[in-house]
Amino acid sequence: MRGPIVLLTDFGLKDAYVGVMKGVIISRVPAARIIDLTHGVAPQDVRGGAFHLMSAVDYFPAGTLFVCVVDPGVGSRRSILWARSARHEFLAPDNGILSWAAKKRPLLERRQVTNKKLFLKKVSKTFHGRDIFAPVAAALVTGTAAASLGPKVRAIKTLPFPTPGRHGRKLAGEVLVVDRFGNVVTNLRPGDVGKKKNLSVRKTSVGHVRERYSSVGIGRPLAVVGSSGFVELSLREGNFSEEYGVYPGEAVYAG
Amino acid sequence: MRGPIVLLTDFGLKDAYVGVMKGVIISRVPAARIIDLTHGVAPQDVRGGAFHLMSAVDYFPAGTLFVCVVDPGVGSRRSILWARSARHEFLAPDNGILSWAAKKRPLLERRQVTNKKLFLKKVSKTFHGRDIFAPVAAALVTGTAAASLGPKVRAIKTLPFPTPGRHGRKLAGEVLVVDRFGNVVTNLRPGDVGKKKNLSVRKTSVGHVRERYSSVGIGRPLAVVGSSGFVELSLREGNFSEEYGVYPGEAVYAG
Amino acid sequence: MRGPIVLLTDFGLKDAYVGVMKGVIISRVPAARIIDLTHGVAPQDVRGGAFHLMSAVDYFPAGTLFVCVVDPGVGSRRSILWARSARHEFLAPDNGILSWAAKKRPLLERRQVTNKKLFLKKVSKTFHGRDIFAPVAAALVTGTAAASLGPKVRAIKTLPFPTPGRHGRKLAGEVLVVDRFGNVVTNLRPGDVGKKKNLSVRKTSVGHVRERYSSVGIGRPLAVVGSSGFVELSLREGNFSEEYGVYPGEAVYAG
Repeated sequence: MRGPIVLLTDFGLKDAYVGVMKGVIISRVPAARIIDLTHGVAPQDVRGGAFHLMSAVDYFPAGTLFVCVVDPGVGSRRSILWARSARHEFLAPDNGILSWAAKKRPLLERRQVTNKKLFLKKVSKTFHGRDIFAPVAAALVTGTAAASLGPKVRAIKTLPFPTPGRHGRKLAGEVLVVDRFGNVVTNLRPGDVGKKKNLSVRKTSVGHVRERYSSVGIGRPLAVVGSSGFVELSLREGNFSEEYGVYPGEAVYAG
Repeated sequence: MRGPIVLLTDFGLKDAYVGVMKGVIISRVPAARIIDLTHGVAPQDVRGGAFHLMSAVDYFPAGTLFVCVVDPGVGSRRSILWARSARHEFLAPDNGILSWAAKKRPLLERRQVTNKKLFLKKVSKTFHGRDIFAPVAAALVTGTAAASLGPKVRAIKTLPFPTPGRHGRKLAGEVLVVDRFGNVVTNLRPGDVGKKKNLSVRKTSVGHVRERYSSVGIGRPLAVVGSSGFVELSLREGNFSEEYGVYPGEAVYAG
Repeated sequence: MRGPIVLLTDFGLKDAYVGVMKGVIISRVPAARIIDLTHGVAPQDVRGGAFHLMSAVDYFPAGTLFVCVVDPGVGSRRSILWARSARHEFLAPDNGILSWAAKKRPLLERRQVTNKKLFLKKVSKTFHGRDIFAPVAAALVTGTAAASLGPKVRAIKTLPFPTPGRHGRKLAGEVLVVDRFGNVVTNLRPGDVGKKKNLSVRKTSVGHVRERYSSVGIGRPLAVVGSSGFVELSLREGNFSEEYGVYPGEAVYAG
């Protein structure tokens, strides 16, 4: 058996959807190693899923199969993809969720998953996580050859990464995601911003990028290089997002 | 060791209750396979637990032991049950939580769990998940015979499934559960409703049952056959429940 | 390989932080047994983490390594600790999170974790769970000697347990935590309160400690000995905390 199956969905944990996917997998692979990356992606937020996958991918062992089900197009004609990078494999709807990880770790092979023999016998129109993704994942970790999944495809859907632009003399970025702590992750890289540029959002000036949270007093806002390698806006021991009403998509300026 | 232990509770994940149950299990069975079905059942919502178990049961392998702890009567004289269907085993308070799954997969044997030798030495009045369910589950997966749990029982508590009725010339159903996405799961079967009857709830007409979400435009309501085999009301890429204020128990009409 | 790795954090499950920690661990120890104690500690709530660890510790097998990351001081000069009790090992920031468990099960050895060879090559200033705690945990369960982590330390930071005091002729305690069900856990022990003293909070009288939830009618408040051994205030099949507006830190009186 190959490496672990890592699940990334927007299913939440209120319902039994994630549990049922695991049931399908262990019905076929009793010893499967299954890890939850997160199921807390906001409903239908493909961009949020792409962010988490990009941030996490390098921390998983070679041979990991990422099963990414943020799938607003479930039941429509959208394709299901299998793809492979140098170290990892992926199953996902063809909606761009793999794009940002693929920018870091290029996809070397892509296939459309069409082989219905690998699906559950009855495939619903609303829960392909259970009926397609889970059984195909189980097939892959038990050695089913990728070639048997379906035909190779060249073009897959891409989610453009929001590259920072210009706003007058300032650099203009935006908020990618907000985490549990209210840290606001931007699309600005430390190299874009340097150590002197002032960060601002919604007319609140946050100052230049600091070394660590404790560079400012408790309850004070700051900019810091976050764990995913982007500049984040935080409130030390507080919630920046709630305090300043800043959510994904909001413009962030440096300069 | 027999099949996996699947946990279904209303404990949530904010506290350490679920973690502690797992601690008790692995203290006795270090290699136990434990899967979370869900811990997001609303507090004391036996009906919600019954729904998830019914929807999930067929997706788990033979030999699975479902440990279902939605238990408003914890510490009272309510019994604890062990039961067996053709493929699975169950531990649950005798409050009807097994009823809906049992309608699909009849229970072939039922016992009252009374053998205190299998419990933790000190049994609290408020957390039988830890003190009774977890150690008994551990005993079962390591081969303790069901006969040693306690006496056979014939009658167990039943939770009536809300069968659709009539409202004038219309079929009258109700909302069973609402999922994370705001999909409203009704007790209406596709066969009850056919392809022509109009679904309505709270004076909102949703139209006939569609093939898939993408049969309507983004942001539009629709009826669709959901993954648990019931008719669901959804908002494409939105939250039907919040948009229309529809929650479990609400009447749904077809006709 | 030694016992399981048990994770206790305030990371929540909305983001991929917990998943990434697991990725780091299984990259180094593919067969590691990882259990989530909880990730629902409120952000930066060291006291909440200390409570859950204290309540849970005795239910885990000998050899368990608890990795406790509630870490408001991440990136600052606060130390990272490894410690050992008679049965368990711990990794945690030196902020007192181990204190209450250590009162029950004394720490026999404490070390400062300073050996950077065990960390990820690049250590961020904001996510030591991923960059330090996870790889050090992996090292420990694969047999790295504790002595190689760093020097022994004598004094570690202590979080004082709020001992009940006096308020006139009454015993004055306080609320430690509120659980998912709205049960209000106090710092009062059954022995402090006996069977006759009246419990009260915010001018609401709750009566003496009852035997079980079903000692009062549905929807009625009561005091009961909770599963962690403290007196709790509950609303039978309801949410005491929300109903009476009672949250951690609130004074509770007995007498």
